[in-house]
This record gives sequence, C-alpha cells and structure tokens, in this order.
Amino acid sequence: MPMKTINVNQDVLADRRAAAELQRREWTEQGILVINLVSSPGAGKTSLLQSMARYWSGRVRMGVLVGDLATDRDAERLRPLVPVEQLTTGGACHLELSLVQHGLRKLPSQPFEVLVIENVGNLVCPASHDLGEHLRVVALSSTEGDDKPGKYPKMFRTSQIMVITKSDLLPYVPFRVEAAIEDAQRIQPTLSSFVTCAISGNGVEQLCDYLEHYRMQHLNPERRRGEVVDGRVS
Amino acid sequence: MPMKTINVNQDVLADRRAAAELQRREWTEQGILVINLVSSPGAGKTSLLQSMARYWSGRVRMGVLVGDLATDRDAERLRPLVPVEQLTTGGACHLELSLVQHGLRKLPSQPFEVLVIENVGNLVCPASHDLGEHLRVVALSSTEGDDKPGKYPKMFRTSQIMVITKSDLLPYVPFRVEAAIEDAQRIQPTLSSFVTCAISGNGVEQLCDYLEHYRMQHLNPERRRGEVVDGRVS
Repeated sequence: MPMKTINVNQDVLADRRAAAELQRREWTEQGILVINLVSSPGAGKTSLLQSMARYWSGRVRMGVLVGDLATDRDAERLRPLVPVEQLTTGGACHLELSLVQHGLRKLPSQPFEVLVIENVGNLVCPASHDLGEHLRVVALSSTEGDDKPGKYPKMFRTSQIMVITKSDLLPYVPFRVEAAIEDAQRIQPTLSSFVTCAISGNGVEQLCDYLEHYRMQHLNPERRRGEVVDGRVS
Repeated sequence: MPMKTINVNQDVLADRRAAAELQRREWTEQGILVINLVSSPGAGKTSLLQSMARYWSGRVRMGVLVGDLATDRDAERLRPLVPVEQLTTGGACHLELSLVQHGLRKLPSQPFEVLVIENVGNLVCPASHDLGEHLRVVALSSTEGDDKPGKYPKMFRTSQIMVITKSDLLPYVPFRVEAAIEDAQRIQPTLSSFVTCAISGNGVEQLCDYLEHYRMQHLNPERRRGEVVDGRVS
C-alpha cells in the first residue's frame, strides 16, 4: 500500500486562519469592534476593563469574555459593571476561537459596540492564535520592567496597541516609559501606546476615545460605504 | 495491510519523564542542587538570582542557565556575578531538557553546588516540563495580585517553594501575603513560602539558607550514605 504524507499541522493552521478571518468579517459587518486583550499574569487587564466600563457606562455598549485556566474570579470582578462570560480553558495556555464563539453565545445583553476578549495571562502562546479580533492590545505593567518587548517579541509584533498599566507605581520602580515604547517600536514601528492607571482612571479616557474613533473609522456601516478601509477589517 | 495504532503522545511523554529522572539522578550523585525557577514575565527572577549570588559570593558555588524567547539581556545582567549561559528558545514558551543539557555543556567554572535554571517567563507552559530539577521554585511578585495561585494552579501544584518577590512594593499594592499563601496552600499544602526584596536583600538570606540546608540533607554524599532520602532525589 503506497504511503501518502499529509501535513496535518499546515492544514490545521490554514483552517484556523480561515475561521478567524470569517469571524472577523462577521463582526465587522455587525459593527462590533472586537479587541483581544493580552498580557502577562497580573498586568492589570481586568482592572483596566473595570475602568473602561466605568468610562463608557451608559454611552458605549461593551461586553467582555474573560479567559482563565481556572476559577471565575475575573468574571466576578467585572459582573457588576458589564455583561461578562467566563471562559475556562481547563489548563490550556491560550484561548481558541471555538471557545470564544461558545462563550459568546451565552453572553447576555447583545449586541455590543465593543467586545473585549481578555485572554489568559501569558505573554507567549496567545500571540500565535488569531481570535478574529480587529485589534490586539497588549498590556505591560510598569512593574514588569521596560525590557519586556524585546524579550517577548512576537506578542508586541502582532499587537496594534500597547497599554502601559499601573502608572501610579512608576515612582517606585526602575521603569522608563520611553525605553519601553522605544523597545516595542523597534519590533513594531506602527504600535500606538497609552499609559494608564486603572485606579485613578488616568489615561483610560484617551485609550477609550481612540478605540471609539477606530470603530467609527473602520466599522461604522454608514461611514464605511464607498470608503477605503484598512486591510485587517475590510 | 492491518492498521496499528501508536499513541505517539504517550510514548514521547514517557521518554521525557525517563530522561528527566535520569538527569536528576546524575545531578544528585554529583551533589549539585538543581532549581527550576519559574514565574510570570517580570516577576523578578533575574533580580532574585543577582541577590542570591551576592549572598553566596565566595561561599557557595552557583551557576545559572537563563531561558528566554529572544535576547541575552538576562545573562548580561548576571554575568558580573555568576557563571551564566543564555538559552534562547527562538519563540518557544518553555525550556526543554535537551536545551538545558546543551547549555550546561557550555557553562564555565563547573562543578557547582547549586545550579539554577531560570525558565522562560510564563506561569503556564513550564509547569508541564520536568527539567530534572530537585526543586521547582515559583516566584510571585507582590504587584501581580494575591489571587494568582488559584488562577494558575498547575504551576503552584508542581512547585515546592513559593517566593513572593518585590516586598518593597507591598505598601503600594492591594496584595495580602497571607491571602496568597493561603490560596497557594489550598492547591499545594506542603509548599514552603518566602517573602523577599531583591533590592534590599530582605528575605534572600532565609531562602538561601533553606536551599543550603536542603542540599546538605538530600544531596551531600557524606550524609546520604545509609540515610533515607526523600522520593524525589533518591
């Protein structure tokens, strides 16, 4: 019997890319801006979302899917502020699109204008998994050190926005904002950067306004007619 | 032609376990205490090792293998203090034993009494890879939040020691040391905990003395003769 070699890995990757592309197109048509929020564990993703939810309260409809290996601690923190669904990976190091789609079906109060997928805390593996998002936002806390972009290059290369969190701790740590931005832009020259403190809300307004503007530019059905839109969301 | 099913995954895992066990036995016979130091990115592993190297300077011979996806930044920080070799995974999310063994052959000034393998900053994937270490030490920085053990259970379940780092920042963050220890011990009841500040050296002496004592108890060839030693290192 002749042997036939099948490259399983390549086929799976191509299938996943196509599924993510299809999902992105669907979200674009629905006018939902979808953000994949990634970072190390404890960089402040959930606190940032709490602060964004407060800023948008009563004005921009936001929903959250939050991923973790175990527990529903993050969903519990967000529940008083936004419609949220916990995705539990059962040990896996990143979210897969299928889990996101499953969670989305259970998320109440749809449709949203902005849907944030808070990924598992991991600065490595989620970089390799397209969830159909329009924007990948990487949070880097001031306490992690300004040398991280170069040490975890794929995550910063595949992100469009970097949010430097915990700016209230900058006086106590050897983190230089300019050094972190420079290190990140060496990898990804078009990266936009914001500096935030989720407790005081400093910088959160600028980030939210940027995201609203992005949505209007790229996803608003009225504006999109006859306009050239960027490659990622067209 | 009849089909034969081979469980490739199980075979590979069994091979890796055997290789790690063999390496551990070799290090035990050589009297080298080997530590696998794991944490999130930016939890302060390299700073902790700098502080340990200063405490042991001229007294305990320590060597370091340091893993990263890219750059040799951590090795450069450690080089003035200890013999060190950078392991670059080229994007992979954890260290493999084969890469460790390859790096060890290039590490100067052997033999050591203590060899620390600083793993890639990732609180998920390195939990599943036995590098032949005697002790897995998980560092958790005070700025990451005291809720992390329950959210990343496998890493804490497979560790013997937890080091809470950056204790100098405790006054500025909502981290309760007791809550973190309680959360971790719910997963791993025999976990030993230390609280350290790498800048001032607070707590580093206690951690180092514990490791020296552990080595004397379990790896010292003179003491080991005729003694019952614990399952892991026997």
